[in-house]
Amino acid sequence: MKKKRICIVTANRAEYSRVKTVLEAISKNQKLEYILIVIGSHLLRKYGNTYREIERDGFTIHERIYNTIEGENPVTMAKSAGFAIIELATLLDSYKPDFVVVLTDRYETLSAAVTAAFLNIPVAHIQGGEVTGTIDESIRHAVTKFAHVHFAASEASRQRIIKLGETPEFVFNVGCPATDLLLRAKILRQKEVLTNEEIKNPHIKANDPFIVVLQHPVTTEFGEGYSQIEETLYAIKDFGMQTIMLWPNVDAGSEHIVTAIRRFLEEYRLRNIFMYRHITNSLFIQLLYHCKCLIGNSSSGIRESCYFGTPVVNIGTRQHGRERGKNVVDVGYGRHLILKAIKKQVSHGRYPRENVFGKGDAGRKIADILSTINGIKVQKIITY
Amino acid sequence: MKKKRICIVTANRAEYSRVKTVLEAISKNQKLEYILIVIGSHLLRKYGNTYREIERDGFTIHERIYNTIEGENPVTMAKSAGFAIIELATLLDSYKPDFVVVLTDRYETLSAAVTAAFLNIPVAHIQGGEVTGTIDESIRHAVTKFAHVHFAASEASRQRIIKLGETPEFVFNVGCPATDLLLRAKILRQKEVLTNEEIKNPHIKANDPFIVVLQHPVTTEFGEGYSQIEETLYAIKDFGMQTIMLWPNVDAGSEHIVTAIRRFLEEYRLRNIFMYRHITNSLFIQLLYHCKCLIGNSSSGIRESCYFGTPVVNIGTRQHGRERGKNVVDVGYGRHLILKAIKKQVSHGRYPRENVFGKGDAGRKIADILSTINGIKVQKIITY
Amino acid sequence: MKKKRICIVTANRAEYSRVKTVLEAISKNQKLEYILIVIGSHLLRKYGNTYREIERDGFTIHERIYNTIEGENPVTMAKSAGFAIIELATLLDSYKPDFVVVLTDRYETLSAAVTAAFLNIPVAHIQGGEVTGTIDESIRHAVTKFAHVHFAASEASRQRIIKLGETPEFVFNVGCPATDLLLRAKILRQKEVLTNEEIKNPHIKANDPFIVVLQHPVTTEFGEGYSQIEETLYAIKDFGMQTIMLWPNVDAGSEHIVTAIRRFLEEYRLRNIFMYRHITNSLFIQLLYHCKCLIGNSSSGIRESCYFGTPVVNIGTRQHGRERGKNVVDVGYGRHLILKAIKKQVSHGRYPRENVFGKGDAGRKIADILSTINGIKVQKIITY
Amino acid sequence: MKKKRICIVTANRAEYSRVKTVLEAISKNQKLEYILIVIGSHLLRKYGNTYREIERDGFTIHERIYNTIEGENPVTMAKSAGFAIIELATLLDSYKPDFVVVLTDRYETLSAAVTAAFLNIPVAHIQGGEVTGTIDESIRHAVTKFAHVHFAASEASRQRIIKLGETPEFVFNVGCPATDLLLRAKILRQKEVLTNEEIKNPHIKANDPFIVVLQHPVTTEFGEGYSQIEETLYAIKDFGMQTIMLWPNVDAGSEHIVTAIRRFLEEYRLRNIFMYRHITNSLFIQLLYHCKCLIGNSSSGIRESCYFGTPVVNIGTRQHGRERGKNVVDVGYGRHLILKAIKKQVSHGRYPRENVFGKGDAGRKIADILSTINGIKVQKIITY
Repeated sequence: MKKKRICIVTANRAEYSRVKTVLEAISKNQKLEYILIVIGSHLLRKYGNTYREIERDGFTIHERIYNTIEGENPVTMAKSAGFAIIELATLLDSYKPDFVVVLTDRYETLSAAVTAAFLNIPVAHIQGGEVTGTIDESIRHAVTKFAHVHFAASEASRQRIIKLGETPEFVFNVGCPATDLLLRAKILRQKEVLTNEEIKNPHIKANDPFIVVLQHPVTTEFGEGYSQIEETLYAIKDFGMQTIMLWPNVDAGSEHIVTAIRRFLEEYRLRNIFMYRHITNSLFIQLLYHCKCLIGNSSSGIRESCYFGTPVVNIGTRQHGRERGKNVVDVGYGRHLILKAIKKQVSHGRYPRENVFGKGDAGRKIADILSTINGIKVQKIITY
Repeated sequence: MKKKRICIVTANRAEYSRVKTVLEAISKNQKLEYILIVIGSHLLRKYGNTYREIERDGFTIHERIYNTIEGENPVTMAKSAGFAIIELATLLDSYKPDFVVVLTDRYETLSAAVTAAFLNIPVAHIQGGEVTGTIDESIRHAVTKFAHVHFAASEASRQRIIKLGETPEFVFNVGCPATDLLLRAKILRQKEVLTNEEIKNPHIKANDPFIVVLQHPVTTEFGEGYSQIEETLYAIKDFGMQTIMLWPNVDAGSEHIVTAIRRFLEEYRLRNIFMYRHITNSLFIQLLYHCKCLIGNSSSGIRESCYFGTPVVNIGTRQHGRERGKNVVDVGYGRHLILKAIKKQVSHGRYPRENVFGKGDAGRKIADILSTINGIKVQKIITY
Repeated sequence: MKKKRICIVTANRAEYSRVKTVLEAISKNQKLEYILIVIGSHLLRKYGNTYREIERDGFTIHERIYNTIEGENPVTMAKSAGFAIIELATLLDSYKPDFVVVLTDRYETLSAAVTAAFLNIPVAHIQGGEVTGTIDESIRHAVTKFAHVHFAASEASRQRIIKLGETPEFVFNVGCPATDLLLRAKILRQKEVLTNEEIKNPHIKANDPFIVVLQHPVTTEFGEGYSQIEETLYAIKDFGMQTIMLWPNVDAGSEHIVTAIRRFLEEYRLRNIFMYRHITNSLFIQLLYHCKCLIGNSSSGIRESCYFGTPVVNIGTRQHGRERGKNVVDVGYGRHLILKAIKKQVSHGRYPRENVFGKGDAGRKIADILSTINGIKVQKIITY
Repeated sequence: MKKKRICIVTANRAEYSRVKTVLEAISKNQKLEYILIVIGSHLLRKYGNTYREIERDGFTIHERIYNTIEGENPVTMAKSAGFAIIELATLLDSYKPDFVVVLTDRYETLSAAVTAAFLNIPVAHIQGGEVTGTIDESIRHAVTKFAHVHFAASEASRQRIIKLGETPEFVFNVGCPATDLLLRAKILRQKEVLTNEEIKNPHIKANDPFIVVLQHPVTTEFGEGYSQIEETLYAIKDFGMQTIMLWPNVDAGSEHIVTAIRRFLEEYRLRNIFMYRHITNSLFIQLLYHCKCLIGNSSSGIRESCYFGTPVVNIGTRQHGRERGKNVVDVGYGRHLILKAIKKQVSHGRYPRENVFGKGDAGRKIADILSTINGIKVQKIITY
């Protein structure tokens, strides 16, 4: 019997952590096979050449597309999206998959969803129906309008997708596949402290408390990133605790943030801030668990932190509207506000755990549904 | 005082008929100026080089973009959409308009809306909220998710846009700008018959009754166009009345329809079928008024025909779900069904007129709103 | 032992006739395998979907690239070339061939040569070193500067390539692979007349004399094509002999020629001119042999006609400088000049045969050299 | 009288230093006007946003094109070239210049020359006919085959262009426009030492001797850059003199060099190596004059150094074949060879000056020729 061919398009590390257990489940499912297309910042040294992590995990990468126009501004972001459509069209036409799986709300997500829908290939969308800031908000809902099957990560998201006019029988609340990784990492978390080897830096005092900072650009506030991150930097400088800071992802405005961090570090030569170009998902989970507070505007952090009760200071509008646990405190861009919030969260300590985004079986559920689903119509029609 | 700069992107003749009175109203409005970007099939000889009609109407075309990848199949449709994004990004960045106006549901509509939204330029969408078949259905609602201001053509459409989660204060029912042209053409309609000069063909018997056929490809049924149009052709052959037939627009599948028509005409050498490569909007209105029946799946025809009560036979799924008057009869692809419906409609004769899509002031209303609107936020957020 | 992987990129029917015997020889060579990438007008219905001829010949097409931007003018020609580079880069990087074989002087030839050279893949160029008009003249010599191995079709061409600064040991005079097909078709030529079945048109009087016309646009005289072809059309109208006419290839200006032919035929309704959208190479050879005269500016015709001694009237600048036999008479664009030349050539009748472009073993020679050649350096350096 | 419109396309700082005096001369010439299109690494922060230097010099930038696909490998280099063609086609068609001026041998140079030639716009090429390594060698001579007017920088180059089959009357030896800047900088050179302010770094001991290092990737040796630069780094570490080092330009392989430098500096924490992201041309001239030795493989350095007699150690194949003065010593990639050569050159001291590339009036000569030249034919034809 011919296997159903599932084409997965992934563009960056955050997306990959949402599709890894799906890939695993497809590999084990006799009725399915996957085609993996890697695109976007996975292929860029600046973002850690994360395609190598996929290979190390034992997955085959079938195609690589360099689509990122350099510049990290709104113009190059749009061009990169258009470029991705052009190349994906040729590849999807060549592979002729039964489904194209797209993830979250990146501009490459839009490119993949548009291309597949134009080619009359059913689109399955993981993690639609959420609410956030930046252009991601528009992309996510637009992708919903091109998708034929929806894998929401929470019941609230499922309801929102249905409200958007999608046929309820094709909208599933399966939880978030990133949660699968999180809950699987449980055993590792028994240890009370990380080692320097695990943390891959001999200069960090692994026994001492630390905070984690991860702040991305807000595309709809392009040009503000420099001063936005500066406020955060002053706050963590004043807070004075050992800090692990990750470079932002590639989006319009990334360069402003990178430049601001570089100049700040050069000027103040702070010895207790440690920059990481890229970390594996499993190290990220460790950090998330062990840190005293997560600061910034990362979706991964906010979503996953509720499972540990790790205190979070969420800065600015990027996650505006996103579902979250009680462990998250929102704050604007002022350094004093941020500092105050960090102090409050660190002194509060760990919150009770909450399971907002599933029970750790999202990957398997998605593969099961893809292998058994029937009755998908290429021609979509709004329900009202 | 600096004028608000309104960038309009138009891709084909059907779109142009929906933006012509908007352009006129912008030209007269002291607070506005327009930038006109012409793209897509406007620039193709095969589709009548319709950019020349725009120039003849006295408008300045600021930029022309050749973006159509030849092939007229789903792959080239996707590529053409991606290509348009790339070039529009450079041009919109250079012109820096205050608004980008996009129309209906073409793939270039999506390209323009995506590009503008990525560049943080507010998007105004004319004619969102409608329901139809083909990939247009997905494109239209996706464009709604990128648009900041919505100019719906009917109250039902306005309600649907609001249901899609758009902020009600930015959703306006202004009617359809194509109706403006229709109602303006009133005086011409006093005459009972067309002349051969008006109809631009000496061989047509202008005094005799005729029907009009306009059938486009259905992108989501790619590969079926050849046999679909054949059914229509057999029906009109059997019906035997003088027929004016228009070539289809450029979309995945156009070539199948064009080939089928060519072969059919060569085989049966029917002397009472007259093919038109391109006709002006004003001639189209005349034909629509004077014909005994309009047959096919064109949106222009279905929407505008209700103002005249011209009988319409609507074939297949392309207009599935679209709002229409009582003058429209739906029918599947079989030749006998089509023939029967044509006979019934022609013998019924003209229906009572209905004003579904506005009163003829849509262009002016749109310009007024664009010149006075305040409080648009680049950062969109769904209302639920 | 690992086979050498030879990637062949072909864009149209004329090119394919120059690479068919190369493909055959590679297929038979134990040390070689081919990857066939089909691009350009091979994939366009308008140009006969000639990729199907390749499939009918039993070759595997590994990849298809739609790269033609519609418009057939200088702008879209440039864009199509750029587009081809982008997509070929991804594919060549994926296949990692040992050689890329490029043919003659099309814009896709340049795209393939540039891409391969940039990727440090050795480029083999078939049919460099010739001299003609149009942009082909610049493209051909530029491709020579990117090529590492040169398969010239004549000794004069070989000498010219060496003069261009190429290393003599990598410049081979192998003859023209299209000649291979020509000489192989010998047996068919025993018959004195063609049948209507062979000629695929029941209306042609196969026993009566006929001429063949094939006139392409001259890209460097863009805008002149309409009047240029009109002169030819008037001449053949006045000459009055049964005429087989082929549509031109896709290049800037094709549409002007197509339009002129259409209007001329509509106006004069000549019953003895038969248009062919696409003919197989073997039928073309038959026509070339049996016709009383070949008229136009096609390279294929001029090159191959010398093997039959068929009289040729070569019009305008397109083949300016190209090597040819004594059977070719050059003439400018005037209708009277053309008519006079046709009359003279038809009354002269068949010329003595000349073997200018090889003995019919070019394909085998090229495969042999590719399988045994050593010492190619990716880093080229001019010899003076 | 209508001015001749000269479109200049420039991609990076090295090119700009070769066109600055041309721009000045065009600005002063009553018969000429310029259109300036900025592309490539001029627009990238990583390469110093050098478009700002152009604006500071008072020139108008008419259009900016983001065309660089991120990745800095052969695939993205090819794609970036194709991308540039696509966008230049639209812009050149819109501006309709009388000439397009292209510079040296970058991939954007090829893109601009191809596009203009396809659009039947005469191409003027500055600095053809030279001989070097890398893909630049092929690009340069290919651009010659698309160019209609040639501005060679030396008599040897002029002769080589003619040998390539170009019409001698359109090949001019005008010298190198970068030399214009060099000789104009004379007065500044009266001072014996640079100040820290001039050198823009308070940590450099401006009175102490220093060397300058500038080493670019070799595209045809892609993958070797990391170890190549390491050899150089070990040599300068051992030499021990104060060192000013510039980051390489954007080309396939840049990232390898950047990474190697970063890791080397991190590992050895050398306090006497000063990295510069970007320096103005005038500071570069100062450094070139005052340094004890220039080390690396930069063309700018090698060409311009002869005017000062500054000792140069030229490493590897990148400048293989390039014309140079007696002040240049060639050496392979070994650290001991490099160290030995540096020692020898520093102890030798300043060489006698040589004027290889003109007398400082190249910009004016080029503008004069462009304003007066006649008889250019768009249709090129090789001279043999």
